[in-house]
Amino acid sequence: MADNNDFDRIQYLNELGEAAVRAERVLSRASTAVKNEALLLAAKLLKERESEIIGANATDVDAAAARGMSVSMQDRLRLTTKRIDDIAEGLRQVAALPDPVGDVLDGGTRPNGLRIVKTRVPLGVLGIIYEARPNVTADAAALCVKSGNACILRGGKEAINSNKAVAAVFREALGKAGLPEDCVQLITDTSRETAAEFMKLDKYVDVLIPRGGAGLINAVLTQATVPVIQTGTGNCHVYVDKAADLDMAEKIVVNAKTQRPSVCNAMETLLVHADVANEFLPRICRELIARNVELRVCKKSKKILTAAGFDAGTLKDATEADWATEYDDLILAVKIVDSLEEAIEHISTYTTHHSEAIVTRDYNAASEFQLSIDAACVYVNASTRFTDGFEFGLGAEIGISNQKLHTRGPMGLKELTTVKYLINGDGQVRG
Amino acid sequence: MADNNDFDRIQYLNELGEAAVRAERVLSRASTAVKNEALLLAAKLLKERESEIIGANATDVDAAAARGMSVSMQDRLRLTTKRIDDIAEGLRQVAALPDPVGDVLDGGTRPNGLRIVKTRVPLGVLGIIYEARPNVTADAAALCVKSGNACILRGGKEAINSNKAVAAVFREALGKAGLPEDCVQLITDTSRETAAEFMKLDKYVDVLIPRGGAGLINAVLTQATVPVIQTGTGNCHVYVDKAADLDMAEKIVVNAKTQRPSVCNAMETLLVHADVANEFLPRICRELIARNVELRVCKKSKKILTAAGFDAGTLKDATEADWATEYDDLILAVKIVDSLEEAIEHISTYTTHHSEAIVTRDYNAASEFQLSIDAACVYVNASTRFTDGFEFGLGAEIGISNQKLHTRGPMGLKELTTVKYLINGDGQVRG
Repeated sequence: MADNNDFDRIQYLNELGEAAVRAERVLSRASTAVKNEALLLAAKLLKERESEIIGANATDVDAAAARGMSVSMQDRLRLTTKRIDDIAEGLRQVAALPDPVGDVLDGGTRPNGLRIVKTRVPLGVLGIIYEARPNVTADAAALCVKSGNACILRGGKEAINSNKAVAAVFREALGKAGLPEDCVQLITDTSRETAAEFMKLDKYVDVLIPRGGAGLINAVLTQATVPVIQTGTGNCHVYVDKAADLDMAEKIVVNAKTQRPSVCNAMETLLVHADVANEFLPRICRELIARNVELRVCKKSKKILTAAGFDAGTLKDATEADWATEYDDLILAVKIVDSLEEAIEHISTYTTHHSEAIVTRDYNAASEFQLSIDAACVYVNASTRFTDGFEFGLGAEIGISNQKLHTRGPMGLKELTTVKYLINGDGQVRG
Repeated sequence: MADNNDFDRIQYLNELGEAAVRAERVLSRASTAVKNEALLLAAKLLKERESEIIGANATDVDAAAARGMSVSMQDRLRLTTKRIDDIAEGLRQVAALPDPVGDVLDGGTRPNGLRIVKTRVPLGVLGIIYEARPNVTADAAALCVKSGNACILRGGKEAINSNKAVAAVFREALGKAGLPEDCVQLITDTSRETAAEFMKLDKYVDVLIPRGGAGLINAVLTQATVPVIQTGTGNCHVYVDKAADLDMAEKIVVNAKTQRPSVCNAMETLLVHADVANEFLPRICRELIARNVELRVCKKSKKILTAAGFDAGTLKDATEADWATEYDDLILAVKIVDSLEEAIEHISTYTTHHSEAIVTRDYNAASEFQLSIDAACVYVNASTRFTDGFEFGLGAEIGISNQKLHTRGPMGLKELTTVKYLINGDGQVRG
């Protein structure tokens, strides 16, 4: 029986893969106008089928609630009229973006007369693995279609009915626009075993993009044979230099920690130069505690804060683990450093290469920080929260890469493409 | 004992990894002048230590011969005065290339005043896994150093003494130029177990580049957790269209198959349009057989060739496996197709997305072929053999990527870099 199940699973995935490759041959050459039409039709159909979609979603939410899903997770899973409006608006925005396919990136004529043109083409078939957020089904499908990539979507099992409803609308829109429906496919068998096999579908899938927490990312990294773009891990730091404008530093630290603590570009550790710690630490910690931030502080910080009248009971001692932890919550590790070099050393040890910031008025400190720190985004005098496709002007985002291969930082449509060399000759052979 | 061995192996690799990361912090910011000095010193020292290196190499070659290594493999392993001259000249050529690090790729000012500059930075720590070719030790180290990447090299065990000698020279040159010797490290424990653990060293290694045959590439793909750039698999096709200039087609086919059959950009299958098969097939096959090419032909080809007087005994029947095989040898699969569409369908089924060519005088056929075929390099009227870093004007090459992620086709210095966003503000926070 086990063998038989395995056989079916692999057969099922191979069929999805073959269908995706076939669809991709058409989609990769589709005109911008046709791709945009599919997106606009999908936006329209989403609204027309709203009650159906919300009904399917209610089944998911009810089942999740019955299984004890947390209220905040239920909230992420839930679709409402407002959210469907937002999703449809997102599709229209992607339709309005420039199409990167066919861009000429480079080129020239070689001494032997060969003319080489480096062009931008879709990656091919993308596998997107994500958690129980049905809006991702529409967002990811839209970015893939616009960039000419067929996609196979594998969403969290808790959202399966919602995802089926959204994917069905998308496929119908593709068909009406004259594109193969299989440009967007959903894996409807949400077992872990099928997900594991999907990660090995390198015969058909060109790139795998996991969107979710550390558990998902690690599962993909250890199991996948398909090339992966890692997204979403961010142990971000803000370093307040001795030459910082402390009013500016306060605004940036509060924003980087509290404006949206659950996301990857939120600050997790605050580093403060010893020369300004006596002045800055008490005021920033007062502000953060007032905003319900739990502090985990180094010994020197604790000394300064208790001397300033803080209740030692509210200040946890930071451990080695705290420096390495991405809380994604209203928790902040705090450390005093004696120099810019110590700040850089600390960040270099614990960074996940996502977003790091310095607050300073010192030109040399700013330069040194930007050149030394190895991260996708290195900020001077701004909040780490800006690492985002919309904030960077990409118009949309499929995730934030924190690996170095292929791309780094926010990934928009261009980042979903690769290159193809077109070489034209008149009979050249190699000597 | 096994546990104890495992512990040592992991400790050994972690030490290499930590040293590489330390060295990379310096190398990533080293000036072009200093990096060039290291390369020129290495070229000089290679010649000064020539007799030592050739002595170490002789130990490897003798041991390999005693173990029964083939003469052609021994030839690849052997270092001579001439080959060391070539390696040294290669290092000087890399020194003369432009340094890609620090290039500004894009940028702008956002509506909120944030100034974003997208710059080019080294990938970081590269792992290069290769076979018994000691010249790769110097070539790979040179490209890594010039592009600001620390490298950990794992060459074939048959070349270990040669690799140690070459790496020692390189490390001495780095030291003399004022760079950390650990910018270039060699794994001296050449066990398979250590290689397997090396592929999982994602804590320290940013990218893994395997250079070698299908066995090596597959081992890396299934075992690695470090992101991989696949190189070197090429099942390349030449399609001779009905509108081909047949004299040109003959030159291109002969060149693509026989000029250097062992490499990844050599042709493996010839497709000929039925309308020109009666005229073209006999003449090209006579030419190829005269050059010792073994032919594996489809039924229609066999009929035409036997009718033209070919001895049926010299014509093997092509099987399904032949269409999918990269011979890397003087063997060619031959198939007649009835249309451009059939040629595209065949190539799309069997391509490894490396290099594909059409020979035609028909504008529409050329365009359709270039737009339809999904490969790194798509040629019109030129030999597939041009897919090469030197031929493309990159000045050097660490390999040819046949995956879509990160880069495709010949990889020079730019392809060994990633991006970093430098973001400068004056107190911006996200609303």
